[in-house]
Order: sequence, then structure tokens, then C-alpha cells
Amino acid sequence: MVNEPDAGLLSLNTATVRKQWPLPQIIDGCVRHDIRGISPWRDQVAAAGLKESAQRIRDSGLTVTGYCRGGMFPAIDREARRAANDDNRRAIDEALALGAPCLVLVVGGLPQDRDGVIRSKDLAGAREMVRDGIGDLLEYARGAGMPLAIEPLHPMYAADRACINTLEQALDVCDALDPARSGALGVAVDLYHVWWDPKLAAQIERAGLERLLAFHVCDWLTPTRDLLNDRGMMGDGVIDLPLIRSWMEAAGYRGMHEVEIFSALDWWKRDGDDVLATCRRRHADAS
Amino acid sequence: MVNEPDAGLLSLNTATVRKQWPLPQIIDGCVRHDIRGISPWRDQVAAAGLKESAQRIRDSGLTVTGYCRGGMFPAIDREARRAANDDNRRAIDEALALGAPCLVLVVGGLPQDRDGVIRSKDLAGAREMVRDGIGDLLEYARGAGMPLAIEPLHPMYAADRACINTLEQALDVCDALDPARSGALGVAVDLYHVWWDPKLAAQIERAGLERLLAFHVCDWLTPTRDLLNDRGMMGDGVIDLPLIRSWMEAAGYRGMHEVEIFSALDWWKRDGDDVLATCRRRHADAS
Repeated sequence: MVNEPDAGLLSLNTATVRKQWPLPQIIDGCVRHDIRGISPWRDQVAAAGLKESAQRIRDSGLTVTGYCRGGMFPAIDREARRAANDDNRRAIDEALALGAPCLVLVVGGLPQDRDGVIRSKDLAGAREMVRDGIGDLLEYARGAGMPLAIEPLHPMYAADRACINTLEQALDVCDALDPARSGALGVAVDLYHVWWDPKLAAQIERAGLERLLAFHVCDWLTPTRDLLNDRGMMGDGVIDLPLIRSWMEAAGYRGMHEVEIFSALDWWKRDGDDVLATCRRRHADAS
Repeated sequence: MVNEPDAGLLSLNTATVRKQWPLPQIIDGCVRHDIRGISPWRDQVAAAGLKESAQRIRDSGLTVTGYCRGGMFPAIDREARRAANDDNRRAIDEALALGAPCLVLVVGGLPQDRDGVIRSKDLAGAREMVRDGIGDLLEYARGAGMPLAIEPLHPMYAADRACINTLEQALDVCDALDPARSGALGVAVDLYHVWWDPKLAAQIERAGLERLLAFHVCDWLTPTRDLLNDRGMMGDGVIDLPLIRSWMEAAGYRGMHEVEIFSALDWWKRDGDDVLATCRRRHADAS
């Protein structure tokens, strides 16, 4: 049998209550529910102010478990790629100011124009742009001392959000760009995206301590009614969360368990305190 | 550049116009639009009668490119597994009567009870049931001379429809159960399910002629509005169909190109002749 999770390892990805509260209130909510980690999103930080957010998080005694997010490397022309690169450097600076342990990278899908319309079917080419983009950014990130965490996204997002779709593929990029396993480049393992993968256990073992930079939990609902915003609370779906957590622990991971639930149909409609109390309970009972 | 597809290789999976017509009319529609292949579903065959359907297909000069479908191996108890096994043997008998070149297997997801409720989170266990179930069925299939085509389904169906989710995984099962590459066991490559896979080209090459038993085409729409029934017509989405067809051809595949589109939101609402004419045109222009 799998051991129970340490209650002190619960962290909140702020997307989970993004519809209910702005960042300052989310921080207060974490304190109220004794949730000791937080992973904020850039838009929320921008709205509340970077300095003010960093101060408030520090004052609240919260541990930052990641900063969401950089990436979106593929672009239709050089100008758009340079803009993405500049924006990613700013994200690194912000992550530093917040005391984040890593910048999470959602790498982008097929190249889109400025209106968000996909303009190429060259998936292999998009993947090259991603590898090159991470390689460029990695130099800056190393200089800044901010690790980059590639988040493989579920294959259903390959076209429009991220063309890195398995942990194996993410680790291949890590090995190509950081063969020394320096700690500057790794992965964010989000169970929503990878739970189905027949190679998951083996690839978590392959990743090992140096590459396992973040661990996100939620659940996969059946049926899933919306591709983007119908994630489930831990215990409400089909993922064997304790089993996969045991694989992470066997690989040496001792970091926090970050709850990230996009749920337009359910959790975003509920009272924020109800959501956080449920996260707390389900982390103990079903994670 | 990739060559144009041979117009004579177009085949229709009958699910594409299942809402418009029963099987006899679909057969007539294929003839009317000079579509020379057909891949019928069991429910449609049952409704029209097995003997009558086989006769009508023969009389129309159509080539059967597959029979949909067997599988659904995982079950909560021995009785349910035996029922599935019996049903799969009947599917083989029907495939023989229809002159199909293979029985397509959608292998099933996590074990469900009789009400369709998922009763286990043991994904590895479900995969073992699938491998064992295919192994059992393969004996009968060999005796009957009916090849089995494992269809890897998109990872978004891992829980409720099929826990074989990549071509690599399907081929691993093939290698375990049919190491001699006898032709009795192979795969159905449906681009909707596998287009995103970074290992797709390599795994198609690995499969080779003996394992490539069927080739299904449609397109992936962005956004996809429904997990099940929002597939796109060739050319309307993001899949580089000619490129992947070229990989199939390089691996020796010379079979037909079967159009299979589940589309409650669009194509199932249109006139059947409009759909078939569009399939014909898009096969030439965008496949």
C-alpha cells in the first residue's frame, strides 16, 4: 500500500480559484486553509503588482512551488519569435522576484498568427522551434539561476497549446539541451496530462530527482465535457493518484503537490473557501 | 513533395453517414459516388441483416476494408469477460461472412460494471486484460483466418474506450503475441488518434507491411468542441495527411484510405450525398 501524503506538501495553483478571487485574496485563502504552497499565474501577478505579490506571499509564509507560465515558442515569423523570447525573459525575472523554484513552460503548438489562427501543419517544425526556443531561453535562465520546467501537455492540446505531449518527449529535450543534468532544466509532471501514458512509470524513474521540478494533481473525469475546463477534483475521476505519487517519491521527489483545476463547469462556480477546504480534504483522502 | 492519392483507394467507414442512412443506402451511396471501399459497423449490419449486407456489398463491387468492431476486453468479473470473448468470436464470424480483411479492435478502457460505470483505476491491470483478451481471441482468429487490427485510440479515451493509446504500445502487444509477424495481428492506424505522436513516423516504419492492416483518415479541428463527435473532414483541421500517408506508403502500405468522421455538430447534420461528394473531393485535394 501507498503511504498517505504529508499534509504540509499541499500547494495551490492559483488557476484553481481564478474565477472567485484575485491573487491577494487567494494568498489569504491559502493561509486560512493552512495550504503552505502557492503557484501563481502571470496575469494574476500583473493585476496585483509584482512587488506587492512577492511581499504578500513572503509575509504569509507561503512557499512558491512554480510560476505559470512561460513558453509558447513556435511563431510564424522572426519578429513573433523574438517577442516570445523577450516575454519569456521577463517571466524569468518575475519568477525570481517571487522566489519561485522554477518557471513552468507550456511550449506552444503549431505556429499561429496574431489573431490566433493556426498557419502551419508542420508539427515536426513546431517541435524544432520549441527545442531551439528552450535552448535560447536556457542560457538566460542559467544566468539568472531560474530552472525551467517543461510541462508535457495532453495530446489533445498538441495543435493549439503544446506540442510536447509525453514525459518521454520532454525528457528527450532535457537530455539534448542539458545532458549534464545540471538542475537548470527539468519537467513539471501534471497528472491530468500524463496519467494515461503506458510509459509514465519508466519515464518518471528516468527523470529522477534532478529533472522532477514540479508535480501537479487533479483528476480526469468521465465523461469529460470540455477539452479545456472540465478537470476534476482529486478523487472524483479515474486517476490512481497515490500510485503515481509513489512513483514520484521512488524517483526521489520530495517537493509539494500542486492542485491545479480548470473547471468552468463546476469548481469555478463554487465558493472559494469551499474549494480550498475540499482541496485540503481530498489531498489527504484521495491523493 | 508528396504524390496525390489514388482515387481508387478511397473507402468509407459507414459511421461517417450513420445518422443519415442505414447500411443498404450507404452502400448505394458509395456506388453513386464511385467510392470503392466500405467498412461497416456491427450495429448497421445487424439492422440490415448479415447475409443481406454481405450480398449487397458483393453485388455492388465494393471492397470491404475492415469490420468495426471487436474488443472491449476489460471487465469487472469472469462472466463479463466471457461474454465479451463470445461476442468477439461472433464479430470474427461476421467479418468472415462480409469478406472483411480484418476485424478492428477497440480494446476497452478501465473495467466498467453493467451500467457503464468505471469500477477500477487499475490502468495497468486493464492493459493486462487487453493483452490477455487479444491473446485468447487470436487463437480463434487464426483458425478462422481473420486478422485482428488493434486500433490505438487517442489518450483522451484511455479511461472509457481504449487503454491502448499509442502505436508503439499497440505494436508492443503485437510483438508479444505474434512475434513471427504472421499477418494474423496488426494495427489500424487512425490519424485522428495518433497524428500528435512524436514517435509516429518511427512506429509506422516499425510496423511495416505485415502489421499495417488499415488506415483511417479524417482531421483534427481546433478548437475541438466535443471529445467524441467533433472530428473534421480532411483539410478542415491541422493534420498533415499527405505527409503521414507518405510514411504509410514508405512502410509498404498499399491498402485503402478509410474516411471515418464522427461529427454530431456538422457532418451528421448534412445531406448524405453532400458528405460523400465532399469525402471524394477532399480525398483528392487534402489527403
